[in-house]
Amino acid sequence: MAVRAAVAGASGYAGGEVLRLLLAHPEVEIGALTGNSNAGQQLGALQPHLLPLAGRVLQETTPEVLAGHDVVFLALPHGQSAAVAEQLGPDVLVVDMGADFRLKDAADWEKFYGSAHAGTWPYGLPELPGARAALEGAKRIAVPGCYPTAATLALFPAYAAGIAEAEAVIVAASGTSGAGKAPKAHLLGSEVMGSMTPYGVGGGHRHTPEMIQNFSGVAGERITVSFTPTLAPMPRGILATCSAKARAGVTAESVRAAYQKAYADEPFVHLLPEGQWPATASVYGSNAVQVQVAYDETAGRIIAISAIDNLTKGTAGGAVQSMNIALGLDETTGLSTIGVAP
Amino acid sequence: MAVRAAVAGASGYAGGEVLRLLLAHPEVEIGALTGNSNAGQQLGALQPHLLPLAGRVLQETTPEVLAGHDVVFLALPHGQSAAVAEQLGPDVLVVDMGADFRLKDAADWEKFYGSAHAGTWPYGLPELPGARAALEGAKRIAVPGCYPTAATLALFPAYAAGIAEAEAVIVAASGTSGAGKAPKAHLLGSEVMGSMTPYGVGGGHRHTPEMIQNFSGVAGERITVSFTPTLAPMPRGILATCSAKARAGVTAESVRAAYQKAYADEPFVHLLPEGQWPATASVYGSNAVQVQVAYDETAGRIIAISAIDNLTKGTAGGAVQSMNIALGLDETTGLSTIGVAP
Amino acid sequence: MAVRAAVAGASGYAGGEVLRLLLAHPEVEIGALTGNSNAGQQLGALQPHLLPLAGRVLQETTPEVLAGHDVVFLALPHGQSAAVAEQLGPDVLVVDMGADFRLKDAADWEKFYGSAHAGTWPYGLPELPGARAALEGAKRIAVPGCYPTAATLALFPAYAAGIAEAEAVIVAASGTSGAGKAPKAHLLGSEVMGSMTPYGVGGGHRHTPEMIQNFSGVAGERITVSFTPTLAPMPRGILATCSAKARAGVTAESVRAAYQKAYADEPFVHLLPEGQWPATASVYGSNAVQVQVAYDETAGRIIAISAIDNLTKGTAGGAVQSMNIALGLDETTGLSTIGVAP
Amino acid sequence: MAVRAAVAGASGYAGGEVLRLLLAHPEVEIGALTGNSNAGQQLGALQPHLLPLAGRVLQETTPEVLAGHDVVFLALPHGQSAAVAEQLGPDVLVVDMGADFRLKDAADWEKFYGSAHAGTWPYGLPELPGARAALEGAKRIAVPGCYPTAATLALFPAYAAGIAEAEAVIVAASGTSGAGKAPKAHLLGSEVMGSMTPYGVGGGHRHTPEMIQNFSGVAGERITVSFTPTLAPMPRGILATCSAKARAGVTAESVRAAYQKAYADEPFVHLLPEGQWPATASVYGSNAVQVQVAYDETAGRIIAISAIDNLTKGTAGGAVQSMNIALGLDETTGLSTIGVAP
Repeated sequence: MAVRAAVAGASGYAGGEVLRLLLAHPEVEIGALTGNSNAGQQLGALQPHLLPLAGRVLQETTPEVLAGHDVVFLALPHGQSAAVAEQLGPDVLVVDMGADFRLKDAADWEKFYGSAHAGTWPYGLPELPGARAALEGAKRIAVPGCYPTAATLALFPAYAAGIAEAEAVIVAASGTSGAGKAPKAHLLGSEVMGSMTPYGVGGGHRHTPEMIQNFSGVAGERITVSFTPTLAPMPRGILATCSAKARAGVTAESVRAAYQKAYADEPFVHLLPEGQWPATASVYGSNAVQVQVAYDETAGRIIAISAIDNLTKGTAGGAVQSMNIALGLDETTGLSTIGVAP
Repeated sequence: MAVRAAVAGASGYAGGEVLRLLLAHPEVEIGALTGNSNAGQQLGALQPHLLPLAGRVLQETTPEVLAGHDVVFLALPHGQSAAVAEQLGPDVLVVDMGADFRLKDAADWEKFYGSAHAGTWPYGLPELPGARAALEGAKRIAVPGCYPTAATLALFPAYAAGIAEAEAVIVAASGTSGAGKAPKAHLLGSEVMGSMTPYGVGGGHRHTPEMIQNFSGVAGERITVSFTPTLAPMPRGILATCSAKARAGVTAESVRAAYQKAYADEPFVHLLPEGQWPATASVYGSNAVQVQVAYDETAGRIIAISAIDNLTKGTAGGAVQSMNIALGLDETTGLSTIGVAP
Repeated sequence: MAVRAAVAGASGYAGGEVLRLLLAHPEVEIGALTGNSNAGQQLGALQPHLLPLAGRVLQETTPEVLAGHDVVFLALPHGQSAAVAEQLGPDVLVVDMGADFRLKDAADWEKFYGSAHAGTWPYGLPELPGARAALEGAKRIAVPGCYPTAATLALFPAYAAGIAEAEAVIVAASGTSGAGKAPKAHLLGSEVMGSMTPYGVGGGHRHTPEMIQNFSGVAGERITVSFTPTLAPMPRGILATCSAKARAGVTAESVRAAYQKAYADEPFVHLLPEGQWPATASVYGSNAVQVQVAYDETAGRIIAISAIDNLTKGTAGGAVQSMNIALGLDETTGLSTIGVAP
Repeated sequence: MAVRAAVAGASGYAGGEVLRLLLAHPEVEIGALTGNSNAGQQLGALQPHLLPLAGRVLQETTPEVLAGHDVVFLALPHGQSAAVAEQLGPDVLVVDMGADFRLKDAADWEKFYGSAHAGTWPYGLPELPGARAALEGAKRIAVPGCYPTAATLALFPAYAAGIAEAEAVIVAASGTSGAGKAPKAHLLGSEVMGSMTPYGVGGGHRHTPEMIQNFSGVAGERITVSFTPTLAPMPRGILATCSAKARAGVTAESVRAAYQKAYADEPFVHLLPEGQWPATASVYGSNAVQVQVAYDETAGRIIAISAIDNLTKGTAGGAVQSMNIALGLDETTGLSTIGVAP
């Protein structure tokens, strides 16, 4: 008895990635595919890597088209998810890969997204303390942002263990697919190849309040976050270099112990052996997360670094992982920890 | 009752890729992993993308270590396969990803490889006419070279249909993984990023006689091949741009018909719709082949272009596909036609 | 007494490159810069690499703005150059980096460009026999296409020496800047990084008739050209792999002699020592051309390969070189043969 | 009366880059080129982008070969510069692009480099307060490390203005040429393309004490530095993302004023207009530095970001700039602020 899944926004990068993963999911049958501006086109022309779906035709995103599915994945522009979810009814599992239901603080939402706050849904980062319980049986899931996924998995164990002060500095490099498929001059291959450049500097990136929310929730106090995203010349991957001032008494051993405890039983997060560092190539196309941590005694800071694939664990893989939990399937069903490298 | 497989040469790119595929193969259990210069090291340090095998330790390549397996994949330097195969006995399926048993012509072998000819094994390109029959039940398989795989699948249908003259011009661009993992200055990232450069120009590349052998076998006459390989700034993928003078009477329709006939039932080769062209990104990490063909009436040439992943269909995927046939499994078992893109 | 130069279309890649070169030209003073859709913007926001011009403001492309200059470089969409040139008057040197005045054959023009033929101007490829004489003192220059520059310099010596048959096969890989700065989905970094893909296959690319014109002019007979362009994952550079059937009696020595003769005195074309092959990285940002040639006796073909920077020698460098000749300056003034590598 | 310059270590990346710049320097004549392991080889085979020097032959690095020059650039492995400099005598200007004479603190030197401290030479970062005076007429120059160049230029104005607390967090992404030309597996194109990875995490990188020295010297108190270098998939460039806790009373205006003051008269450092951010592509091959700064009020940190070309301003361009000062030439002679982009 297969789970029937629809994807709204199937022509973009998030939509394409969730389809790539669902094609390998043994319990899922792919139903309707929608994409407003591309409705009527064959998927083979838009997502030529998804060979088994090449002949499928995109439809309009309407309640009728999305009806009759067990799960609907939303890969829509900000602000559209609430209306679509309402039309689908309370019994359909709606997995929102957009931002609409991530932030608890209405003021933060309004400040960073400029529209009315829609509320919050269970947060699809199962590794975060308490998250799995909220996802079990859920009918609505808010998939985290790609940067918050990488940064949270790098640094929350330090807050969970109480070894870090209430301020974090995060510098993350992302592949260009994080910026989407809409053509813009600064995202042209000619511009991005051979170049590193920051953006949203100084606290302006929308993922900042989401990181603050995650760290603060774990720490039980307000954590200050300085977040700088940078665009790297690669299609996929996020490398998040995170640090926080160590509390008094912290040692290299206590830092490592905190991370070993946090990730002892996590199927997708791999705390690397000492001396080995995360590389985005190692998790290319996989749902795995590589994490490493060090204690810089001279600077007095804990340095935690993670590598994820922004489209897989950072978006569509996290979505499928959370769907598995919500549906009562094994959390790892259809998801791989094997990267495509070199 | 799983098939137990060993990999000799597990620390290189071909060895790593066959392991990546075997990890997803439902009928295979991974046995011994060997790698002489890296014996004693953990695979996690050498192939960090193969997370489920991170704790496995490489052994020496000896008959004792390789004994007790149903299949042994060889990813060894040229000239070593014959001795290893002999020691394994006639009942073990030996799949050689090296060149030792590809060429029928001893003189060609000696000219291009500079050592004594070892003979030929069934040729692991199932799409080539007659190849599947030779692979069924085989205990020895010679996996084709990566360039011959791409070029043969692009152009053999023209020879099979008798629409091309006996000369081919092939220019292929390969990702750098085709040059292997041994560190050389001209393969450094600093050298290859942002650069295209040819090598082995003028007929000197070792894959040239293999292409001639494939085309001539299909055509029933000696085909002349001018082959120029180029190194492209990407880790994986081959784009083979092939052309041959069209015979008299050829039309765009007869060209397309020849290709539709050749690939109507092939599970891995996808003849693209007219107007769409192969891209190596679309087959990244997959065993799929994208093929397109055009007839340039003004120049009087048939232009056939293919895109493969050099490590997957071009090496390890072709090896697994042929293993499936030899073992009587469904040819597509454990292999994907879904690329990792963007 | 400086030469005063204006650039129409200063916000695109060709316009930016000509400005980069003119900034280093000791005899040129940069005057008006125009760009219709970007008029009113500062160049620093559009071409941030041209630091000395950061504060300059783009103007509309009008006769008034372009008046009062000795030289006007046109980097405009096809079909606009004739009207602008007419308004500038016969005494201004107009260097057209577009296609409007390249093709002699009106039928070819109409077939490939779909508009009325505007005529021809002296062709700005000084290395082509007879071209320098036509450029000296010229007031109008048609800069060649980037692919024709690369292919012509690779293969014309074979036609000039009468050692090649009347058919050529050309496969060229270009960096993405050749496709311009207008944002299109298939040119996004996410799409092009890690991928090789062909386009305009089968004789459809607009640069095909220009190559035929060049080769035929040198050979004194109609040369057939099969041309396949491919897009490579790098910002700049063209590697053109060209071949032609050798005439009877050709030897490796006669081939090399033909090229040594053609390029003995050329300041920008460097025939590499035997055994060394062109690399686009070696000519990055320079006006140099690397050429190498081989005779494949088995296949009976001459293989000639060139590497250029598509924006420099392939566009703006060729334009400045031709301007130098037209103005009676030393041909190499302000132009470099030093690449930026690695 | 030309300055005669020799380069010891001309086959590597630093040596190649200094030659590229000296070729464009109007006052310099290039003399002896040495490279021990490559002695006897032509430069054209080792540095094919330096066309005008293609026929020059590398010699052994001996006092006899290096004698008779006004300036000797050293691009040697650590620990070799002192002996060579001694042999050259006190009247020759020796510009060391290695680390030997950068650190004042002998204990730091021994801890990070593992050998005896050689002393310090005038520090070749002219933009640092006091540095120019020390360089004027100097006969010995220690060129800064590439990361310290980028980080110091990004953050020292904040310390000079007294607006930052005594702790800095620096995350920098470097192109692979910073790791040199010696072939190593983890630097292969196959490994670095498509990947971001950190190294030297936790305070272990040798450039850390150099940054501390620079910041502390400006601030007049000990500055703590947490430095994480990362390897980015590009040949050149460093993007340094630096931050420090803002002192009480700091405002966006006071931050900007500090940077405007620091860089008002610097010929190579360009403080970008508000809203524009540094990109390594914009300074590709140039000696320019792009700097931007922001004040994150919520996080209470000053974020300063710089982009340089690691081989130009970060190594060889900085060396030539300092040589100009030492020789009494205009500081900008032979150096460009124009990047090669796209």
